[in-house]
Amino acid sequence: MSKVAVMITDMFEDDEYAKPAAAFTKAGHQLVHVGLKAGATVKGVKKGTPVKVEKTAREVKVADFDALFIPGGYSPDRLRVDEDVVKWARDFVKSGKPVCLICHAAQLLITAQALKGRKVTGWKSIIQDIKNAGAEFLDQEVVEDGNLVSSRSPADLPAFIKACLKRLK
Amino acid sequence: MSKVAVMITDMFEDDEYAKPAAAFTKAGHQLVHVGLKAGATVKGVKKGTPVKVEKTAREVKVADFDALFIPGGYSPDRLRVDEDVVKWARDFVKSGKPVCLICHAAQLLITAQALKGRKVTGWKSIIQDIKNAGAEFLDQEVVEDGNLVSSRSPADLPAFIKACLKRLK
Repeated sequence: MSKVAVMITDMFEDDEYAKPAAAFTKAGHQLVHVGLKAGATVKGVKKGTPVKVEKTAREVKVADFDALFIPGGYSPDRLRVDEDVVKWARDFVKSGKPVCLICHAAQLLITAQALKGRKVTGWKSIIQDIKNAGAEFLDQEVVEDGNLVSSRSPADLPAFIKACLKRLK
Repeated sequence: MSKVAVMITDMFEDDEYAKPAAAFTKAGHQLVHVGLKAGATVKGVKKGTPVKVEKTAREVKVADFDALFIPGGYSPDRLRVDEDVVKWARDFVKSGKPVCLICHAAQLLITAQALKGRKVTGWKSIIQDIKNAGAEFLDQEVVEDGNLVSSRSPADLPAFIKACLKRLK
C-alpha cells in the first residue's frame, strides 16, 4: 500500500479532492495532508468540504512518501506563495515517484520550474501558463508522462482516479 | 473625463475593485463593467461585494473606452477562459490606452500573450508565470511601462490609485 502526500490548502475544488481521496483510501492507501499550517482545517471552494492539514512541507520528507496528489481549485495558487511547498513539490517531481495533478494543480509545478519538456494537461485557464513553462499541453482527459499523471477538470475524475490508482502499489 | 472598462467576474478581490472604482468615480470618470454575462451580478471573494456586469466583451468596442481596469482576486483566472474577453484585452493593450492591473490581473494578459518584453508587477503567486510570459517582473508597489500600470496587492492600493488617476484625463 502507498503513503500519499496530499498538498492542499483553502479553496480547493471539493470533488477534485474528495473523490480521489475516497478512492485512494478505499483501495487501502494512506493519505497525509500537507499544507501551510499544521492543525488547520482548510475548506473547499464550492461546498466547504473540511480537510485537516496534518503537516507543513518543512515537517515532511519526500523519502517518507510513495506518491504526491495535488487537487485543483484555487488551492495550488495559494500554496505556491510558500517557498517550502514549492521546493518540496520540485523535489518530489525529481524523485521520479508518481505525481497526480488535476485542474489548477500544474500551477504549483510551474512555480517550481518542474514542467519544462514535460507533457501535461490542466484547466483551460492555465493552458498558456503551461506552454510558457516549456511544457507541452495536451487536451486529453488524462495525460501520463513519466511520473506525471494529469487531468483537466472534475469531468475527468473517473479516468483520473483510474490512472492514479494504477500508479499506487 | 474618461470612460473606463472594468473587466470583472465572480471572486474578484473586493478592495482591489471597490477602492479604485470609488476613487475613479469620485474624480468624475465613468465605469462600464464588462464580463462574461450582461446583467449578471458578480461578487467579491472576501466580502461578497456585488457588482452588476453591464456588457460582455462581444458587445463593446475598444474604441469606446479611454482606459481598462482589471481588478485582482480569482476574477482574472475566470475571465481568461473566455476567448472574446482574452481577444478584447489583447486589443486594448495594443491600442496604447492605459491598462491598470492589480494582483492576479496580469494572468489575463498572459493568456492574451500581451506581456512579452513588458515590465510588470503582480501578486507573488504569479511571478513565475509573468517571467515565463517573457515579461520582466519588478517587486515594486507600482510599475509603469508604456500604457501598463501594475501593482501587487491591496497594500499597494493608495499608490496604484494615484498612478491610475494620473492616466485618466
